[in-house]
Amino acid sequence: MSNYHPLTEPEAIQIAQSIPGIFEPQGELVSREIGDGNLNLVFHVSQPSSGRSLIVKQALPYAKVVGESWPLSLDRARIESEALLIEARLAPGLVPRVYHADHEMALTVMEDLSSHKIMRQGLIDGGTYPLFAGHISEFLARTLFFTSDLGMNQQEKKTLLGSFINPDLCKITEDLIFDHPYTDADTNSFDDHLRGDAELLWNDAELHLEVALLREKFLTHAQALLHGDLHTGSIFITPESTKVIDPEFAYFGPIGFDIGAVFANLLLHFASQEHWASDESSRGARRQYLLGTVRDIWTSFDNTFRALWDEHGVDRVAKPKAYQDDYMRRLLQDSIGFAGAKMVRRIVGLAHVADIDRIPDAGVRAKAQRIALAIGKSLIKNNRKTSSIDRLIDIADSAARG
Amino acid sequence: MSNYHPLTEPEAIQIAQSIPGIFEPQGELVSREIGDGNLNLVFHVSQPSSGRSLIVKQALPYAKVVGESWPLSLDRARIESEALLIEARLAPGLVPRVYHADHEMALTVMEDLSSHKIMRQGLIDGGTYPLFAGHISEFLARTLFFTSDLGMNQQEKKTLLGSFINPDLCKITEDLIFDHPYTDADTNSFDDHLRGDAELLWNDAELHLEVALLREKFLTHAQALLHGDLHTGSIFITPESTKVIDPEFAYFGPIGFDIGAVFANLLLHFASQEHWASDESSRGARRQYLLGTVRDIWTSFDNTFRALWDEHGVDRVAKPKAYQDDYMRRLLQDSIGFAGAKMVRRIVGLAHVADIDRIPDAGVRAKAQRIALAIGKSLIKNNRKTSSIDRLIDIADSAARG
Repeated sequence: MSNYHPLTEPEAIQIAQSIPGIFEPQGELVSREIGDGNLNLVFHVSQPSSGRSLIVKQALPYAKVVGESWPLSLDRARIESEALLIEARLAPGLVPRVYHADHEMALTVMEDLSSHKIMRQGLIDGGTYPLFAGHISEFLARTLFFTSDLGMNQQEKKTLLGSFINPDLCKITEDLIFDHPYTDADTNSFDDHLRGDAELLWNDAELHLEVALLREKFLTHAQALLHGDLHTGSIFITPESTKVIDPEFAYFGPIGFDIGAVFANLLLHFASQEHWASDESSRGARRQYLLGTVRDIWTSFDNTFRALWDEHGVDRVAKPKAYQDDYMRRLLQDSIGFAGAKMVRRIVGLAHVADIDRIPDAGVRAKAQRIALAIGKSLIKNNRKTSSIDRLIDIADSAARG
Repeated sequence: MSNYHPLTEPEAIQIAQSIPGIFEPQGELVSREIGDGNLNLVFHVSQPSSGRSLIVKQALPYAKVVGESWPLSLDRARIESEALLIEARLAPGLVPRVYHADHEMALTVMEDLSSHKIMRQGLIDGGTYPLFAGHISEFLARTLFFTSDLGMNQQEKKTLLGSFINPDLCKITEDLIFDHPYTDADTNSFDDHLRGDAELLWNDAELHLEVALLREKFLTHAQALLHGDLHTGSIFITPESTKVIDPEFAYFGPIGFDIGAVFANLLLHFASQEHWASDESSRGARRQYLLGTVRDIWTSFDNTFRALWDEHGVDRVAKPKAYQDDYMRRLLQDSIGFAGAKMVRRIVGLAHVADIDRIPDAGVRAKAQRIALAIGKSLIKNNRKTSSIDRLIDIADSAARG
């Protein structure tokens, strides 16, 4: 029998107390549950006298979404803590430190990042993050290269893959990103004014072929250990620091899926500028900043990944420049296709983004939603024809101009 | 501690005796070890008085190849017996029946197929197998479809994949098929007269790109549960019956790898007709028979796989005809590319085929080897441009004509 049970605040404090080297010997600890209660309990445990703190995160055995509750494997807590440890080793400083993990209790004790903001909110608040492109491309290049057949012993990779089989959380992605938005599914959720746009998605054969191809890659292409859910709500940020959190969707999948997630969320915010920018000129500047960030991420990812390959490549057969060029071109195409799929689902699917949903005026919101849908559809349809990040920039620019 | 130890003949008899429903209660059992001793012990246990028999196959913890010995996981015996059970369920009558498996002892007790011939020898002996194309395409279509994301619950597939992680045996393929033949590796083995041909392989950038792409698919594309080593030495045959054996290389990989293995071995035999055919006219007829079989296998596989998809497809997103056509075109391309890689390695790599190696006259053998190499290289270079099985037929025909 498992000892698993949801933690109480006193228990969270007791666990926190047992972690060596964090708190001072004297001084009371206080705990505050700060999770959204849908998937996990998140206890912020602090010691007011010393100013020290940490996070105790525990998975719940179910997911609550729009009032429904469905069972969800607790194994995702093990996957999350193991992924964090691997990411910490491969991309030091870019994920929270893990102090302790208890797989039976489905909990991870980790660094408190309260000094950071969730990036989605940071962007909504108008923040700019000049180091972000460098940080996230470093995170992507290093975690993905060193868990791929290019940068990791290929037999050890197969064994590692076996400990990141993640059916429950992959199923969420398979349904909500690669299926439901393209049919009249019960889970879909969209503003009434978007019904016509949604119906167009449900009847677009060209789009359906491309989505089926992207879905196939998600199901079968075990390229590297992905974060698996790398949107701007999974990133803690300050102008100086970037921390990627919540890798509970981690599994071995197509590299472009992680890169595309970052692109998609920057482009959703790009679309949301219909509202958040105070005037036309600041809107233009903000959009330039966001597209510049997307371009910098790709350029820097491409450079770093190729440099790692040249220096640390483990596979003789993968050495030729022609193969590397072909591989990087396909990574860009996949990134663009997955970015498109991740934008579309945030407009008509189950889970939306605050950048757009919080736009109060329905007409302005509709305009932002249609810009996001136009970019998403175009990225999906053009992914296999793309050979440069310029194509993505052009698609976004022209969608914003209408 | 494991109880594993190599079986003696008396132990093999004891195990055979314990299988219910095979032997008559009276009547002595006799055992004969018939394995080649390189990888496995194979005991043929029979009861002369009743004419009943069975096979006890046990994996050895090492592989002996060209005098060298290297350790090899006993887990491959578990993989083999589990793959046989799955194949028996999906393709009834096309694999030996498994009576018993003991993972700790790395042994499988199974149906005796002594009434059949190893297909490679059957072909060398001039046999024709009119039912083979139908049988093998049925085996391929059913085992591959029903273990893919098209025909199997996609979450159960992920879990099943976890029990077929097979690093040791995949490594053999990765090295011997997708690496060593394309560089001056110690393991390579070829007749002196082929040195020039081998050096051409080592310096062909176009070929290296295509081999790298095929290797990437082998490493990352977890489409379905493959047999993994489906050459004509892994097939027991009579004119009426086909039995696929030895799935110890089974893992989740690209579907075209299994289909390509069958094509490659029929085409190696096609090349070997320089010797085995008694005259020009019987050589032509034999070659027509072999190419006709290749064509029938693809046509019948294509029909059966599509019919299964239409009737038993589990994935709504995979329904559109345009996607099915695209998928089948890519399967053909992969099959052709992998077929080419499997031909090349049998001429210059570590392990050869008797069809060609047993040709006594060096000049005739060289001619057969060069036909095989020409077909192999051309299949590899043309795989991504292929849209019809006719292309493979044309390539083989024109290589044979010189």
